[in-house]
Amino acid sequence: MRRLLFSALLLAPALTTGGGPSTGDDAVERLIAAGLASDGAYRKLAYLTDRIGPRLSGSENLEKAVRWTQEEMRRDGIDRVWSEKVMVPHWVRGVEHGKILAPTEHPMIVMALGMSDPTPPEGITAEVVEVASLEEVKALGDRAKGKIVLYNKKIFPNGGSDRGYGAGVGLRYSGASEAARVGAVGMLIRSLATADLRTPHTGAMAYKDDAPRIPAAAVTPEDAELIHRFLAAGEKVRVTFTLGCKNLPDAPSANVLAEIRGGEKPEEVVVIGGHLDSWDVGQGAQDDGAGCTISMEAIRLIKASGRRPKRTIRAVLFTNEENGLRGGKAYAETHAAELSGHVAAIESDSGGARPLGFGVSAGPEALATVTRLAKPLAAFAADETTEGGGGADISPMADHGVPQLSLRQDSTHYFDIHHTMADTLDKVDPHDLAMNATAMAVMAWSLAELDPPLARYSPPKTEDASKPPGIRRP
Amino acid sequence: MRRLLFSALLLAPALTTGGGPSTGDDAVERLIAAGLASDGAYRKLAYLTDRIGPRLSGSENLEKAVRWTQEEMRRDGIDRVWSEKVMVPHWVRGVEHGKILAPTEHPMIVMALGMSDPTPPEGITAEVVEVASLEEVKALGDRAKGKIVLYNKKIFPNGGSDRGYGAGVGLRYSGASEAARVGAVGMLIRSLATADLRTPHTGAMAYKDDAPRIPAAAVTPEDAELIHRFLAAGEKVRVTFTLGCKNLPDAPSANVLAEIRGGEKPEEVVVIGGHLDSWDVGQGAQDDGAGCTISMEAIRLIKASGRRPKRTIRAVLFTNEENGLRGGKAYAETHAAELSGHVAAIESDSGGARPLGFGVSAGPEALATVTRLAKPLAAFAADETTEGGGGADISPMADHGVPQLSLRQDSTHYFDIHHTMADTLDKVDPHDLAMNATAMAVMAWSLAELDPPLARYSPPKTEDASKPPGIRRP
Repeated sequence: MRRLLFSALLLAPALTTGGGPSTGDDAVERLIAAGLASDGAYRKLAYLTDRIGPRLSGSENLEKAVRWTQEEMRRDGIDRVWSEKVMVPHWVRGVEHGKILAPTEHPMIVMALGMSDPTPPEGITAEVVEVASLEEVKALGDRAKGKIVLYNKKIFPNGGSDRGYGAGVGLRYSGASEAARVGAVGMLIRSLATADLRTPHTGAMAYKDDAPRIPAAAVTPEDAELIHRFLAAGEKVRVTFTLGCKNLPDAPSANVLAEIRGGEKPEEVVVIGGHLDSWDVGQGAQDDGAGCTISMEAIRLIKASGRRPKRTIRAVLFTNEENGLRGGKAYAETHAAELSGHVAAIESDSGGARPLGFGVSAGPEALATVTRLAKPLAAFAADETTEGGGGADISPMADHGVPQLSLRQDSTHYFDIHHTMADTLDKVDPHDLAMNATAMAVMAWSLAELDPPLARYSPPKTEDASKPPGIRRP
Repeated sequence: MRRLLFSALLLAPALTTGGGPSTGDDAVERLIAAGLASDGAYRKLAYLTDRIGPRLSGSENLEKAVRWTQEEMRRDGIDRVWSEKVMVPHWVRGVEHGKILAPTEHPMIVMALGMSDPTPPEGITAEVVEVASLEEVKALGDRAKGKIVLYNKKIFPNGGSDRGYGAGVGLRYSGASEAARVGAVGMLIRSLATADLRTPHTGAMAYKDDAPRIPAAAVTPEDAELIHRFLAAGEKVRVTFTLGCKNLPDAPSANVLAEIRGGEKPEEVVVIGGHLDSWDVGQGAQDDGAGCTISMEAIRLIKASGRRPKRTIRAVLFTNEENGLRGGKAYAETHAAELSGHVAAIESDSGGARPLGFGVSAGPEALATVTRLAKPLAAFAADETTEGGGGADISPMADHGVPQLSLRQDSTHYFDIHHTMADTLDKVDPHDLAMNATAMAVMAWSLAELDPPLARYSPPKTEDASKPPGIRRP
């Protein structure tokens, strides 16, 4: 139970030094004072999670959220609020059960990976072969034939692309096809998890066109460890699992947009946003209800400040990040002609924990500039900037040179609950969320005022095609 | 993945100071050296959990464990190994599902409390009323009529009887009958949990003879929080849940005993033990496979030392601690005539994490004596002694004056996984378990040698009858 007396926020460190000079931008100081004293982001998130719920692409809940977020931003008085239709994949979960049959019977909790085909109704029963990388599965050759491949790679908090989520996501996304190529009949993956309470973690997978399609599911860290112990002892491990999930025809959804028109250069735009869809388990509170409500509250704070920015500030709540990135792609296509005037895009998609600052992928001097703009956020320690930033939904804009920023949170516990039934509102601290909305508002405002704008971005050409679109670049 | 190079144990701090005087008891030093270098407890625990599995009273697995632990202790060369038949309750889990129906539909994970009656096949559907104590439920009066009572009390790590498990266990054990007395039709309890990954925690409940019997289940912390948020907002909350559990006729089980006969006073006995049964979910690794294998390894270490203790040392693996305490009661009855010669009983039933030392409930000076005996355990920081100790299984011996000791572990994370699907071997560190077995061996040996023995125990007469037998005394 994390409850906040918002009055306590008023006791935050004084934002101007008594008698000393002000920081020079009165608008930023006002945004900080108003943002830290507001519970607006949390109230919006509570509605999105408790009153609507999880928001998988194709679900009624997602379309409720598309409607409600527009209504809410209209109530907040944002200049213009609208939606842009996007057709999205429509995958639904079904029955899920599993069991370790030998050498000793044990229950095995399974959770289908998003977009997986179902198993036959009687399930798949086979011996398990364990690997920890896509290279290892390729090297299996005939030893995978007729077997179920278990990708068993432990990830660590703050492990990054080396030992963290980034090191495992390629296995989840591409592992089924690579296993099928060497003859496997099913694919299991140890949940990409940094905590272990027998909770499975779902997430997107995709089939390659030129490989057989085999069902794919996550197992809990505990069951992966148990299978590992048996295999390490030289035992043959037989398991069975059944998935009733299915892919239905694409369904209509929409990106939600809201903007405050710039007073001087309205055709130049700062985009802020997160993604409105979530997995079907849990409430999609941290992933990414937080990012959406941070952005909604940020644009509300700017509107409520009564000051009009030089450039346009646009909040975009993207649809279908989780299993298709259709919203992010559609935005970049629909707005292709405007992207040369998009001076920056900031995504928040790593939860609602305490903000650390911003990651930046843009041209020369951009990091130094963002570091300067972030200085007032030192009032609540959210001024740490790092080279490298962005987000899956804004990544399609990268090829148009749009500077990519991420609002960075303390993600130490993010992968404890990411893509699980435990991604629920109770994990979000209202004060943390208020700080995030404030940081987003300040950076959006400051980039909308900045002259000259950040230098354009030239993304690296190298890509890791085993990973989901949007996180393929190093 | 907690893996240990046991060779590292050989690098433990030197146990005698170079050139200085020895501590005087060569046997204790040898036990420590041998215990810290052995992976025996972990290997036994791995068999009990991975090769047998969970061990609910009445299950085939529990009787497998009754047989295997005897075979294992015979292999270890213990002087005498036997079992003593005990009839135990035979409760089995069935289908379990739940849902929050209003004000917004959400899934609600339910897990039947042990010994609960089932719901009707169509489940129970009613409005929820929330309380945090047995006093509050009594005060509800007519407001509970036809409703489902939710006991929503958060517990905290190391919270003790004030804010920890001890503060909540009475709600779980007695809450259904107290709710039924004021007309409730069902009882839910927020899991007695110190972590939250949407994992429910089961545990024993009991019906009072003079109250109606209503079904009882645990919900996850997340779902309890969600219901609380709705109620706090003034909403009516309607839920439905279905339980297919049932109580079958009592089944045969057994306590397992193994002893090394004392060389001088064989009729005087030091009992060490834990309980062999577990809940049906998880593997019963921490609760209490750890306590059993700590005791099995402790008696093996003493036997392997080649030294015969003055008094008899007896390991007892009690059956049916979780939902009946029949094993503990049966031991005290069967051995009633010997209990005046039982000089101490030590139970380990708080997991297998790092040992801290011992808790002591006995007569004058006993704590000081145990503190002195524990001094050699300072070599691995397991020499912290506290007033107040014992365990549910040995508690029936308290009325006979038998000094009660507990082997105490760091239980900071114990209630994260206690009574859950996540109580699995991977949570146990082999080195921690070796230290526990060593501490148990040293204390058992030292009490078997001690002259005069610890002063007899006079337990307090006051009891909290709302709590399960065995933990009713303050």
